[in-house]
Order: sequence, then structure tokens, then C-alpha cells
Amino acid sequence: MEETFVPFRGIRNDLQGRLMCYKQDWIGGFKAGFRILAPTTFIFFASAIPVISFGEQLDRNTDGVLTAVQALASTALCGIIHSIIGGQPLLILGVAEPTVIMYTFMFKFAKDRPDLGSKLFLAWTGWVCVWTAALLFLLAILGACSIINRFTRLAGELFGLLIAMLFMQEAIKGLVDEFSIPRRENPKSIQFQPSWRFANGMFALVLSFGLLLTALRSRKARSWRYGSGSLRGFIADYGVPLMVLVWTAVSYIPAGTVPKGIPRRLFSPNPWSPGAYENWTVIKDMLNVPILYIIGAFIPATMIAVLYYFDHSVASQLAQQKEFNLRKPPSFHYDLLLLGFMVILCGLIGIPPSNGVIPQSPMHTKTLATLKHQLLRNRLVSTARKCMRKNASLGQVYGSMQEAYQQMQSPLVYQEPSSRGLKELKDSTIQMASTNINVPLDETVFDVEKEIDDLLPVEVKEQRLSNLLQSTMVAGCVAAMPFLRKIPTSVLWGYFAFMAIESLPGNQFWERILLLFTAPTRRYKVLEEYHATFIETVPFKTIALFTIFQTAYLLVCFGITWVPIAGALFPLMIMLLVPVRQYILPKFFKGAHLQDLDAAEYEETTALSFSLATEGELGRTASFASDGEILDGMITRSRGEIRRICSLKLTSSAATPCKEFANVQSPRFSDKVYSPRVSELKSELSPRLGAKGPSSPRTGEARAYNLGKSG
Amino acid sequence: MEETFVPFRGIRNDLQGRLMCYKQDWIGGFKAGFRILAPTTFIFFASAIPVISFGEQLDRNTDGVLTAVQALASTALCGIIHSIIGGQPLLILGVAEPTVIMYTFMFKFAKDRPDLGSKLFLAWTGWVCVWTAALLFLLAILGACSIINRFTRLAGELFGLLIAMLFMQEAIKGLVDEFSIPRRENPKSIQFQPSWRFANGMFALVLSFGLLLTALRSRKARSWRYGSGSLRGFIADYGVPLMVLVWTAVSYIPAGTVPKGIPRRLFSPNPWSPGAYENWTVIKDMLNVPILYIIGAFIPATMIAVLYYFDHSVASQLAQQKEFNLRKPPSFHYDLLLLGFMVILCGLIGIPPSNGVIPQSPMHTKTLATLKHQLLRNRLVSTARKCMRKNASLGQVYGSMQEAYQQMQSPLVYQEPSSRGLKELKDSTIQMASTNINVPLDETVFDVEKEIDDLLPVEVKEQRLSNLLQSTMVAGCVAAMPFLRKIPTSVLWGYFAFMAIESLPGNQFWERILLLFTAPTRRYKVLEEYHATFIETVPFKTIALFTIFQTAYLLVCFGITWVPIAGALFPLMIMLLVPVRQYILPKFFKGAHLQDLDAAEYEETTALSFSLATEGELGRTASFASDGEILDGMITRSRGEIRRICSLKLTSSAATPCKEFANVQSPRFSDKVYSPRVSELKSELSPRLGAKGPSSPRTGEARAYNLGKSG
Repeated sequence: MEETFVPFRGIRNDLQGRLMCYKQDWIGGFKAGFRILAPTTFIFFASAIPVISFGEQLDRNTDGVLTAVQALASTALCGIIHSIIGGQPLLILGVAEPTVIMYTFMFKFAKDRPDLGSKLFLAWTGWVCVWTAALLFLLAILGACSIINRFTRLAGELFGLLIAMLFMQEAIKGLVDEFSIPRRENPKSIQFQPSWRFANGMFALVLSFGLLLTALRSRKARSWRYGSGSLRGFIADYGVPLMVLVWTAVSYIPAGTVPKGIPRRLFSPNPWSPGAYENWTVIKDMLNVPILYIIGAFIPATMIAVLYYFDHSVASQLAQQKEFNLRKPPSFHYDLLLLGFMVILCGLIGIPPSNGVIPQSPMHTKTLATLKHQLLRNRLVSTARKCMRKNASLGQVYGSMQEAYQQMQSPLVYQEPSSRGLKELKDSTIQMASTNINVPLDETVFDVEKEIDDLLPVEVKEQRLSNLLQSTMVAGCVAAMPFLRKIPTSVLWGYFAFMAIESLPGNQFWERILLLFTAPTRRYKVLEEYHATFIETVPFKTIALFTIFQTAYLLVCFGITWVPIAGALFPLMIMLLVPVRQYILPKFFKGAHLQDLDAAEYEETTALSFSLATEGELGRTASFASDGEILDGMITRSRGEIRRICSLKLTSSAATPCKEFANVQSPRFSDKVYSPRVSELKSELSPRLGAKGPSSPRTGEARAYNLGKSG
Repeated sequence: MEETFVPFRGIRNDLQGRLMCYKQDWIGGFKAGFRILAPTTFIFFASAIPVISFGEQLDRNTDGVLTAVQALASTALCGIIHSIIGGQPLLILGVAEPTVIMYTFMFKFAKDRPDLGSKLFLAWTGWVCVWTAALLFLLAILGACSIINRFTRLAGELFGLLIAMLFMQEAIKGLVDEFSIPRRENPKSIQFQPSWRFANGMFALVLSFGLLLTALRSRKARSWRYGSGSLRGFIADYGVPLMVLVWTAVSYIPAGTVPKGIPRRLFSPNPWSPGAYENWTVIKDMLNVPILYIIGAFIPATMIAVLYYFDHSVASQLAQQKEFNLRKPPSFHYDLLLLGFMVILCGLIGIPPSNGVIPQSPMHTKTLATLKHQLLRNRLVSTARKCMRKNASLGQVYGSMQEAYQQMQSPLVYQEPSSRGLKELKDSTIQMASTNINVPLDETVFDVEKEIDDLLPVEVKEQRLSNLLQSTMVAGCVAAMPFLRKIPTSVLWGYFAFMAIESLPGNQFWERILLLFTAPTRRYKVLEEYHATFIETVPFKTIALFTIFQTAYLLVCFGITWVPIAGALFPLMIMLLVPVRQYILPKFFKGAHLQDLDAAEYEETTALSFSLATEGELGRTASFASDGEILDGMITRSRGEIRRICSLKLTSSAATPCKEFANVQSPRFSDKVYSPRVSELKSELSPRLGAKGPSSPRTGEARAYNLGKSG
């Protein structure tokens, strides 16, 4: 993205780009048919359950002024608005943990002021929202989002891990609280006797770990060995919500023998209970707020504005990472402008505002990539089969598949019909198969499904329908509150832990932390899987140093959220990473190493426009998904760059980044090629990784190779 | 083993064979040094914990006449005797579930007779033991064990799975009981209030699942990626007992807030409490038993004799499976004779007798194989390194390794110095590496540890020390009862489930059951791993039919153990499998298929002596363990035959068992060989497996191949 600060230019560009594909956004969604429900349901749960739980947290922290109903209402309202008139429909909106933290700080402040108190708290936050929105407008108009590229992987992944830590903290806190008496309850009730409290705590442990373990398993159902493919697919798509249902059902098993209230369930007023609508009319109180506080509201507003600017943009960025090969343009500036309007709206009706959320937004894109893969695959397989029945040659089959693939590509107004994707692969594959190119194919020789899986690039079903549907379902939650209240809180804690763990794979920061703990003799195993470039090109010591710095920074950020009032400053810590990365880190790390550890576009290319870069990249780095299951793995595990395995194709060339690997190659490989030990053999290539000092000539070469690839 | 029924010949042969290596049995054990403690501790826990738990079960079922103390005493006594003067020191003795079942049946019978009652129960069982021993003597002298080969895999694995089911049943029963009031306790105590009972049950769930999951994980520590190699090895070796300690410690965490008795812990009298010695003088009561009951004792005695004959021999057989490549001779006849003596001894001092146990005995051999591998590996690696420092060529390195290997082989009196093992591999590897045979090696080109791992065959550290030590430790348990009573019963249930699950892999019956549930499209994955021959040679329909028959039979056996008195007949059901396998099954299944599904030696070779067959096999089927971790996997997963992967080396020959696989081979393989997708490619070879009808010519060919290999 170009760094331009001409007022309104960014917004205009965004609007132009998105308007051109607006119609297709809807048509594409409807064309997907019922299958759209899988990503929709998954994201609905991933979005609604944390919001409910954050709502509970708000409820406790604001003495019931704000509840889960308001949090859900905000999520639904903003989600529907964004999915219809927002720029980037992949972005998921919701009330997030940082918002809860900020509102908690504000409530603690307001409660102790006699001329404000909890009665005028919402009115005051209305003013905070107004100021926040004003700042967001300013940022959007001035094109602040164009410096989004300065938020490198360093900041994005640190923030991602911080969110994961906050989720995990919430889960642990919640579980521990199951053993004690909740503040607002009557401690004389039977279920708060020591024995029942202990029983409740233990039951909570069973339910939350049960949910966590089964949910983690069910997400991997696609690679299970048992059960039919459609059942496995169903479990992988809907397993997590299913498990919430199952464990909620389990929580009712001992209902006959335990008093009501064990296990503890969600506490939220029904939206139709008296007093639930008090906040909707907060606008009439806003003028009662003393003028000093109206002006003072500017201080928390700056923090929230910084937070939202960062959170919203990074969530959007993570949902549009390069390896997803998106076709449609981004819309950072316009989305920030719209966020400003939504913040005002929320402030005036006294509900906490929503913003783009991590990890739900990238999760959304991932599930849509799986959907697109299924759609493409089904179409191409049937085309190829039809063709083969006519005794076509391999070339003809590829020709017809190519044609079908083109038809599936929704031609967008602003770009030429795509000739990417299948074509290059086709050439190489045909060459490879040249021995029998003229022989009619049959399925014993030519495994269509496998072939097609190998050919298909990662593509995303970009549309607005799934976002709209999930937001509407969140709105439905407000009405379905009586049913939601049947969910035990302990299941929620398990779900929180699940969200935290699910967001880890693919986060290179996390993987570098793991690498630090990996035994030196086992590091070759990392090389056997999809892995990031830096593992091969950056010396281990440098990786360690960089990771330790980042971990220390993360712990400081995490620690700050615990500090009473000053904790509200934690968004500044994240912003501070921009200058740290740009001016301080290059003094301690080599440019080439930094580039691999934390690619910053300003160090790489400068004048290329965003869309051009994307186009150019596609042909070269397009990631190929070879199976639903492998796709899962690849997209989950790689974020921000395509990982490549140190294959021999690579190492056999002359100017190779893994020079010493080539030595080992000769005697044994030619013989054992198809033996069951192939993976072990590959491992022999690599245990030396990272043992080289920083002065290794390898690194330089690798650098050259890498630049050649990306430039 | 020759089927000879000349009286005493079997016993004489056994004694001769074992006496020749008796001295080496001790020397070998002491030479292993401290490392012997790993298998010792593992087997001690695997042996002691179930015995304690079976003792608890006996305690409940016999109204306290027999307790865990007696069960432990019997296990220790018999174990020490067997490890010193027994034939096969790999065999582990203990009080087993079938014994408990038989004693329960006998107690129920005796209790209701006015002239017997629970007072004379032990005296009566003394007579039962006398009769049992007499029958065992008869069986041993007449050489009944020589028909052990008629107990095919069918019977052995069915029995193994039955034991696993009984373990699992015990675990589930135990967990369910944690929610109710134990019979002998005062139901008025505070810990049996509904609330505390529920809390206790939930706590039990947490503790038992905690133990189960962590124990299962820790067994796989060798393949973990994190932590140093020695730490991983330590956890893999000692992790399970460690977890018992950890979860026992966890059970004390809420000690301050819960009443005493939560969670429930082992209930066993101390051996020095009054009345604990009543049973030791049971011999003086034996003449008080009415004569009718003395004669009648013959009826349960036959059942127990059949049970012990089978259980003891099968446990011994499983501990000496072919793929362990044992060097020392078996000793079925003599061990059965000794068992008779031990049964009398136990009967006269009023403790339940012990016999060879599954799954502990094969577990013992497995851990000793890991030990031997570590010892060999360390020696060879240091030899090779020393040699390479002198700039030796590859041939010289192998020469010196070969020499060191020979030194490690304890030459046994009765056989020639072994020239097996490394030699054949040496030749082929040298040939393979012929390109650089004259170049001095250095470690960057020649990865010593890897090479040696590839070369080492599976060998077992056969000695008596580990068995003696573990029995002595069990004896120590009797004294350590006050400490053992700190273990929560729920941890025990978790351990039971762990034992049941640990015994499953490698049981082909279980793997065939899993295969029935494997999705047809995923069956190729089975082929990618170590797998049994039948998967490639027997049509899927036949596998399914055979497995369903076996499952039905298993369920009948399991059902019978539930029938009140007639349940004592269940050993007969297992014996019945011998004629069923020999005369009935061949009418329903093709000989070649039966051979692969359930190799029976009487169908294969007849005149070869046991030791000769073993010798002959070694060179050809010796299984090669390439890593501690892979060794773990291989030994665990293969029992009774070496699995081979359908490698291309195999398929490319002309008369190949996987003929149609060769077709697929041509175009793509030559190109993608080293790509990360090798495993996927291999999978393309195989999904057609099992789809062929029973008339497939492939099966016949495969048969021929298979016979050629094993004949």
C-alpha cells in the first residue's frame, strides 16, 4: 500500500475498489449455496461465545451497568452494518477484551467521582465515544492506515499473542473462581456451602477440560482415519459448536442429585427484563455530564482511538495475508471511517463499541478458503471425469479443467481475466507426464482427485453473506438469551482456552518460542514440516536473541494491563513497537536477518502499489493446497509467508542456500528413495541447522536467493 | 517346539537349555549397570499397582479374608522364586484378574455352606491349590506345553483383549463407585453426604483422567520435540510412576478444604495390624475341612489348572515372540512344573497364587529391548567415532563396529558365536556407499548415530536381575503399605485404563477391529505404517468376516465372566478355541488367508525344532530398530511378525505381490521423488487395497512370496 497522506485519497481509493466488486460480493455468497453455513456457524460461535463471556466480565466489572446483552447487541449491530456497507467483508467485528479492559478502567474512575458516579457512567462513555470517533475520522481522512505496513509481523504477532494470553488468563481466572463464591450471589445459598463449592469447582474442571480436549480433537477431524469423509468433514466444520452442546448436555446429567446452580451457568438478564433498556436512552443524560469531564473524556478517547486504529487495522491485515491470494482490494481507510461512525452510534445508545477482532477475522478467511477449495475441487473433478470418459489425453483433460477453472473465476471489473493458478502448474505437470501424454487416461493411472488437489492454489471465497449471516445470528442470540443461559460458565472457560490455543499455530513468534525449547538434536524435525524461511537462513543465536527481546516486550505489555489506571496505556506500548522496529532493532540485528524474521515492506520495496505487488507475487508464491486437510494445516501453520521445505530440488542447484546439505546427498539417496525411511533421510539433511555462527556465508547466499524470489 | 509327549522330556530339555545360560543370566544383568533400573521400575509399577488394586477387589469380594497385603505377598514370593530358579526370566508373575474372579466365585460358594463358611474358606482353597498343583505337575510332566503352538495368535490375542476389557471394566466400575457409598464404610460420615460424595466423584474423574492422559503422553516422550534427549528418555522410562506420584500429590492440594477421606485412598490393613497374620497358619485348619469338600475342590481346581496352564504359557509365549530375536531357549514345561510348586506353597500359607501375567510379561521384554538397544548403540557410536578420528575408511569403520558388536554378544555355550546382525547390513551399506569408500570419513558426511541406529537389530537384554529386583520391590511394598495407602483409588482407576490402552497396539485383533472402522478412502494410511502381511494379501471381506467372528467370540467370553457361578468356566472357552481354529475355521476360510491372519505353526512347518527355527529366521526377518523411539513404535506395533511397508523396491520386481501398484509408478515418481509430498505419493499406490474380491490372483502370488520368506 502506498504511503499517502493526501486527505481523503485513501478513502476514495478504497471506496472505488470495493464498489467495483460490491455486486459480486453478494452474488458470490449466494452462489456458494448451503455450504456457506459451515464458515458462518463456525465464525458465529467463535464470535458470539467470547462476546457473551466478555459481557459477563463487563457485568461483574461495571456492577451490572453493562451486561452480555449490550455486548451482544453491539456486536450484532456493528457486524450487520459492516457486512452491508463496510469495505472489507472478511473482517469480523465484536466487543473485544481490550474494550472490556478500557471500560473497566473507565468505570473504576467514574464510580469514585461524586459528580459522575455509576449513574452518569454511560453518559460519560458516550462523550468518550464521541471524542474517539472524532479522532478516528481524523486518522481515516489523513490516511493513517497507509502506514499499516509499518506494523510488521513483530507488532501483529505480539498483539496476537497478547490477546491469546488475555484469553487464557480469562479461562484460568474463570476456573479458579468456580471454587469460590461469586460476589453478587447470596453466600448463604446451599450451593455455596464448602462441599458444594468444591464439587462445583471439580465439575467445572471436568467440563472445561472436556470441552477443550474434544474441541481441539474435532478441529482435526479431517485427518481422522475413522468414519466417512462427509462425517469427518461435518465434525471438522461444526465440531466445536457441537461440543459446546454436548458438554452443556453433560452438565445436566447429575441434575437430580445436585442443587440448582451447580454447575454455574451464564448470568445475564433477559433483554425483556425490567431495566434492560435503561441504557438505550443514554443520550438524554449526556448533557448532564459536567463540562470538565466532557473535556477530560478526551484522554481515554485517545487511548481507545489508538487501540481501535491498531486493532481494527491489524485484524483486517491478518484477514488479508498474502498467502490467502485474495483477489479483491483492501479497504483500510474507509473501514476506519466507518468504525468511527459505529463508535458514535454505540456511544449514543450506551453500549460498548465493537471493532475488528483477532483471532476471529483471520479464522474467517481460513474457513472461507476451505470452502472455496471444496467448491473448486468438486467442479474440476467432475469436469476431468467427464473428459476422461471421452478417452481424452492428459493434455485435453488439463485443457478442459483449465477452462472450468476460468469459468469459476468471477471476473472482476477492475482486473483482466485471471490466467493465473492452474496454468503454470499445467505446463510443468504435462511436461512431467510427457511419457504418456497421448495415451488415453483411466483412473487407475491418473488419480483425478489427487491431481486436482495438487493443482489447486489457495483461494478464498470472498463475499459478504457469511459475515451478514453470522452477525444476524449474533442478533438472534439476544433473543435466545434464555437458551444461552443454559451453557455452564465452565464450558465457556474451556472455550476460551480453546480459542487461545487455536490462535497459536501459524504465529511465527510463538513458533520461535517453541524453537527455543526444541532440543538441538530435534531441530531437523522443524525443517521436515512447512516452515518459515528464517529457520534456514538466520543463525539460531540471532533467532533466540530476537525472540527473547520480543518475549520480554510481550511480558511488559501483559504486565501493564494489570496496573490499575495506567494499564489503559497498553495500546501505546504496541504503537511504540513501530519506531522500535524501524530505528532500534536494525542496530542490533543484521538487515538480512531482520528481513527474514520480520519482513517490513518499507525495507523491501517502496514504490510498488499494493495491488500490483499482490498480482506479481501470485504467480510465484501462490501456495498450493493439496487436500482439505493439508489446506487446514498449511493455512493454519503459515501466516504471512509461504513456507517451503528444504527439498532436494532446491539443494541440487548450484547457488543453493543449503550448501552443505548437498554433500550428504550422493550415496544413499539414490538407493533408498522409496523406502519407508524417506522422512528420516530428509532429517539427515538438516540437524546441523542453526549450529552455524552469524558469520556463515550461507546466510548471505540465502538472502540473495530470497530477494531474488520476492523482488 | 517339538510336540513330544514323552514324560519328563520337555522338562529335561528346558532345564538343560536354561542351565547353560544360567550364569550369563546374572552376569548380563549386572553388566548393564544402573540402566537396569529403568525396566525394573517400569515393570515394578506395572506389576504392583494392578496387584494392589486386585487385592482391594479381593478384599471387597471376600469380606476382608484376603487383602492387598496377601496379593502383594504372593506376587513378591512367587516372583522372587521364579526369578531365581524359574526357567524363563522374562516372564513376570503376579496375582491376576482371572485369579481374583475364580477366588470370588469360590468365596461366594463357600460362604453359603454352613459346614464351610468364610472361616474355613482359606483352608478349602488350600485343598483347591493342592489339586491344582497336582494337575499342573501332570501337565508339565506329560509335556502339555508342547501343544502351545496350537494356541495361535487367535487365542492369544483374544485373551489379551479380554484382559484389557477386564482392566477397563475395573477402571469404569471403580470410577462409578467413587460417586456412591462404599459398602463397608459408615454411611453417616461427613464425606458420604450427597454433596461430598458428588465432589469426591468429580475429583476422582479429574485425577483418573489426569493420570491416564499424562501417562499416555509421557510414554511417548522419546519422540517429543522439547527438552534434552536424556530428559525425554527419563520421562519415557519413568514417566508413568512419576505421574502416579504427581497425581497423588495433586490429590493433597485441596486437603485443607475437604474432609478426611476425600479423595478416597487405598484401603488395606498394614501387615503388622492385628489379624493380618491369621491366614499364614491356614495349614492347621486344612484337616478340619469336610472330606466331601476336599474331593469337591477338584472341580474348581481343574478350572484353575486350565486357566494357569493357558495364562502362564501364553504370557511366556508373548514375552518371547519371534520379532524380539531372543537368543536364549524357552522353558515352558519346567516353568509349569515350578508354577505347580508355587501354587501349593501359596495354598498352604493361605494367599492367592500368582501366575504369568499379561500384559506385563511382554512389556518387560519390550523395555529390555530398549535397554539393549541403548547399550549397543552407545558402544558402537564410541567405537565408530574413535575409528573415524584415525581417518579410517568406511570399510574400516564397519569392520571395527562389527568387532565391537561381536564383543557385546555374550557367547552362549550352546551355540556358535553369532555372526548375524550387523554383517549382512554391512555388505549392503558398503555397496551403497561404494562411491566414497576410500575417502576418509568425517561426521558431516557420515552421521554415525543415524547409521548405527539403522544397523542395529532388535535384541533383548535377557537376564534375571530385573525380574528379581522388581519382585523384591513388590515385597518392599508390603512394608511400605502406609505410603501406598496415600495413593487415591481414582489414580488407580486411571492406571487401569492406561494399562488396558497400552496393551492394545500391536494386537492384530485390535488393529483389525480398527480397520473395520477405517474409512475405505483412508485404508492406504495403514499401508504407510508398519503393518502386518495380511493387510496386503487377504481380501478385506475375509478380514472383516474373521474379525467379526473373533469379536463375537470375545464378547461371549466376556459375558460369561458375568454369569454368577458358571462364570468360572470361562477358561474353557479359551481352550475351546484350539479345536475351533484347527477344525472349524479352515472350513470357512482359505488356508492361505488363515495363514496370514493367524499363522499356526502346525500348518506351516512340522519337524523343525523351536530353536532351529528361531536361528534360521534371524538372518532374514531380523527387525531393525533405527531409533529408541522408532524401536518403541515398532515393537509395540508389531507382535508375532515383522511388518513391511509396500516399498517400491518390492513392487518393482517382476513377481510382485502388489502388481497393479507398479502401473502407477512411471510418470510422476521419477520427478517428485524428494518433494515434501513423498508420503502422499506413496499413498497413491495403495488405496485400492482390499477392494479386490477373494478371487484375486494377487493373493496367491503374495502367498508364494510370503512362504518363500518364512520357509
